Amino acid sequence: MGGKSDIGLIGLAVMGQNLALNIESAGYQVAVYNRTPAITEEFMKERGVNRRLKPAYNLEEFVKVLELPRKIILMVKAGPPVDQVIEGLLPFLEEGDIIIDGGNSFYRDTERRARELKEKGIRFLGTGISGGEYGALYGPSIMPGGDESAYREVEEIFSKIAAQTPDGPCVSYLGGGPAGHYVKMVHNGIEYGVMELIAETYDLMRKGLGLSPAEMGEIFRKWNKEQQSYLLEITGEIMDREDPETGKPLIDLISDHASQKGTGKWTVQEALDLGVPVPTITAAVNARYLSAYKEMREEFYHLFKAAEGKKFLAGIDGERDLLKALEEGLFLATVIAYGEGMDLLQRASREYGYNLPLAEVARIWQDGCIIRSNLLKQIQRIYREKGETASIILSGEFSKEFAGRIGSLRWLVGLAAEAGIPLPAFSAALAYFDSLVAGELPANLIQAQRDYFGAHTYQRKDKEGTFHTEW
Amino acid sequence: MGGKSDIGLIGLAVMGQNLALNIESAGYQVAVYNRTPAITEEFMKERGVNRRLKPAYNLEEFVKVLELPRKIILMVKAGPPVDQVIEGLLPFLEEGDIIIDGGNSFYRDTERRARELKEKGIRFLGTGISGGEYGALYGPSIMPGGDESAYREVEEIFSKIAAQTPDGPCVSYLGGGPAGHYVKMVHNGIEYGVMELIAETYDLMRKGLGLSPAEMGEIFRKWNKEQQSYLLEITGEIMDREDPETGKPLIDLISDHASQKGTGKWTVQEALDLGVPVPTITAAVNARYLSAYKEMREEFYHLFKAAEGKKFLAGIDGERDLLKALEEGLFLATVIAYGEGMDLLQRASREYGYNLPLAEVARIWQDGCIIRSNLLKQIQRIYREKGETASIILSGEFSKEFAGRIGSLRWLVGLAAEAGIPLPAFSAALAYFDSLVAGELPANLIQAQRDYFGAHTYQRKDKEGTFHTEW
Repeated sequence: MGGKSDIGLIGLAVMGQNLALNIESAGYQVAVYNRTPAITEEFMKERGVNRRLKPAYNLEEFVKVLELPRKIILMVKAGPPVDQVIEGLLPFLEEGDIIIDGGNSFYRDTERRARELKEKGIRFLGTGISGGEYGALYGPSIMPGGDESAYREVEEIFSKIAAQTPDGPCVSYLGGGPAGHYVKMVHNGIEYGVMELIAETYDLMRKGLGLSPAEMGEIFRKWNKEQQSYLLEITGEIMDREDPETGKPLIDLISDHASQKGTGKWTVQEALDLGVPVPTITAAVNARYLSAYKEMREEFYHLFKAAEGKKFLAGIDGERDLLKALEEGLFLATVIAYGEGMDLLQRASREYGYNLPLAEVARIWQDGCIIRSNLLKQIQRIYREKGETASIILSGEFSKEFAGRIGSLRWLVGLAAEAGIPLPAFSAALAYFDSLVAGELPANLIQAQRDYFGAHTYQRKDKEGTFHTEW
Repeated sequence: MGGKSDIGLIGLAVMGQNLALNIESAGYQVAVYNRTPAITEEFMKERGVNRRLKPAYNLEEFVKVLELPRKIILMVKAGPPVDQVIEGLLPFLEEGDIIIDGGNSFYRDTERRARELKEKGIRFLGTGISGGEYGALYGPSIMPGGDESAYREVEEIFSKIAAQTPDGPCVSYLGGGPAGHYVKMVHNGIEYGVMELIAETYDLMRKGLGLSPAEMGEIFRKWNKEQQSYLLEITGEIMDREDPETGKPLIDLISDHASQKGTGKWTVQEALDLGVPVPTITAAVNARYLSAYKEMREEFYHLFKAAEGKKFLAGIDGERDLLKALEEGLFLATVIAYGEGMDLLQRASREYGYNLPLAEVARIWQDGCIIRSNLLKQIQRIYREKGETASIILSGEFSKEFAGRIGSLRWLVGLAAEAGIPLPAFSAALAYFDSLVAGELPANLIQAQRDYFGAHTYQRKDKEGTFHTEW
């Protein structure tokens, strides 16, 4: 195949392969490289036939076939591998060339790399890409940040390969430095929250109502008609899937030990650094950790659970009401999870000067990515109208929905507490709402205690200043 | 005053002053220094008269009056000030001299300082000191870690100034490197958790039962007869305190915006790094953040709370039962907060090779420090007998108490959810217990979702290996 390639892609794991094919389908010639040549060969043989793909087997060759300024997308594992690839590339690059890190890099690494590469005259784009395997192939949500002139060079390609919506392609320049990876990190934090809320809903339906996976699949599908949430949609499909070997519902055979890759954890740690409460997302991260405590859970189960026995909820108020409460409670708690994430983005934008276009963030999450959902239309509208908001919960339709449905969330949390079904994310979401709505919190006592034992002083309601009491 | 000083202390804020006086009272001559000479002068004039204290007005002079090997305690603000003081001291020190950082330094800073100072031949002890102003003066809990030979040089002094119990003085060598500051960090994390639980209990009593501070003071004092918890004790006293100006209960005049210094946040971030769930402590840190969202809370209050109105709980099941449930629920949730902290220590000890003596940790927390409580006797016993434990909740008397009283915690969380009184830490503690006890968690769905959108694979219950489904 002749001519130079429009763009190069390094890292041919599933996401990298699919993204390369997506770009090629959009009409570009793509050079591809993988550290292990056999993987490149296999990719070319299995998926690259009759495609405008140019395999390279060393970095020098790879760089040589690229049009100037070179555009190189890295789809390698976050962490040291990204630095290693960049180091390997540098000897062959020229001033103005563009490196795009399309992985889930920690935003502080992206910040450092942008700084280091700028000194070397290389333009860098830290770019979050969400959508999983399918999205990478047919249209992901793309969250680019970094050098704006570099973004303009790849804008056409990104716009063509991104998911397409009536509001435009799911890509937008988000800001300088690590803004793109920051937004992707928070996207994933929200994803953790929503996944955990759906999992808790499932847990309540199976343990509290004794529903079968097929029944639950139907319910999730019904709820999703209005929500149009990708995570609800795939949950419905998961519930329906049979294990081909045993004929049993596959979900019943999967062990309850969830893994993670770190972006949820980073979101929570970052929120802690900025003083932003994200309790629903936090509960989701902790729930994954708890799921990994398999041995300890066995001990607990044998010591306590046998004595408690099973308590179905069905008798309490009837199945239909509980399902309605679950639908409403899941909706509200999901809004809270998105709200926590948007709040974090708004704070970070101010703190770090990213100047994030929050309405655009909501727009480009509307399709292609894992947390896509009808909710995001409303969130986009809120930020378009207001620029900023103290909380999406306070805004427009959401506030009405909270006023009307919060009783469902209360009922669920109470029922589950009595029945011993753990709802860590639901109860964190409710406690978050109730803390915000409380008027008075008991933090006056905490101020008093801190002043008592540490002379940390306190503020008063009735006058300005800081005060200390000789207790 | 003639002769060399046994020990030197730098940093004459309240804690430093009190610690210097405590050491002097134990029979030692103490050299004291503060960056601002006026503070040293004032201290000597106001509290140092007829005391074996030797004020110094520059670091060279300060170092010269110390016995060899020199022992220098830093009581300065954590962070860069510690490095600045160490840098200032170094030119005047000799090999084998000992620097003791008695502040709330982040353990990774302590790790770095220990390494850097070792290269220079200086012995370093990162030492947590808890007990607030009063403890510093009359007997704190001291948590030293670092160079063991250095610890042996100050062991006598530390043993004399620490709080004294029938089980010995509240000090013990905890391990190399930053082990001391690590333990202090987790101590403070537990402290956050217990403070928040007491604050939520107070909130439920005032909002749910309409009790007055004086009535609550009596209740806290009554509960504390058995618990012997310092934080419960001071809460009782805080409730009784009148504002001298207005004659009103002081607690009613203190604003509900709590501050923090970072040790709670570090505990949570560190737990996230190690994959240890500490949800009760986390909820406590988040509650402080939420208390700081004053403006947003106003908006929420006006939008939602007016519509809900006040709901007292008294009518639901009678005041007496609710108080009993509160006492029991607070006890269990407090055990969970300690358990989360001990679990984190046990994991960190293994991960970082600190080899922490967990029974000793529980012993030296038994007096002098902010989280002292009868609970710690039982925790000490558990670790003496077992060395390690999956969770203190599973052990001996605690397990019986959980089996018997968990219904109280359930009832409280449910009641408060219905009434709109936020109990973030209580509900996190219950969800933690219920997750551990559940047998099956819904993390199987999370595994399936991750495999669906990201081909992350999953494990099965019925066979070994990792699996992927083409969903």
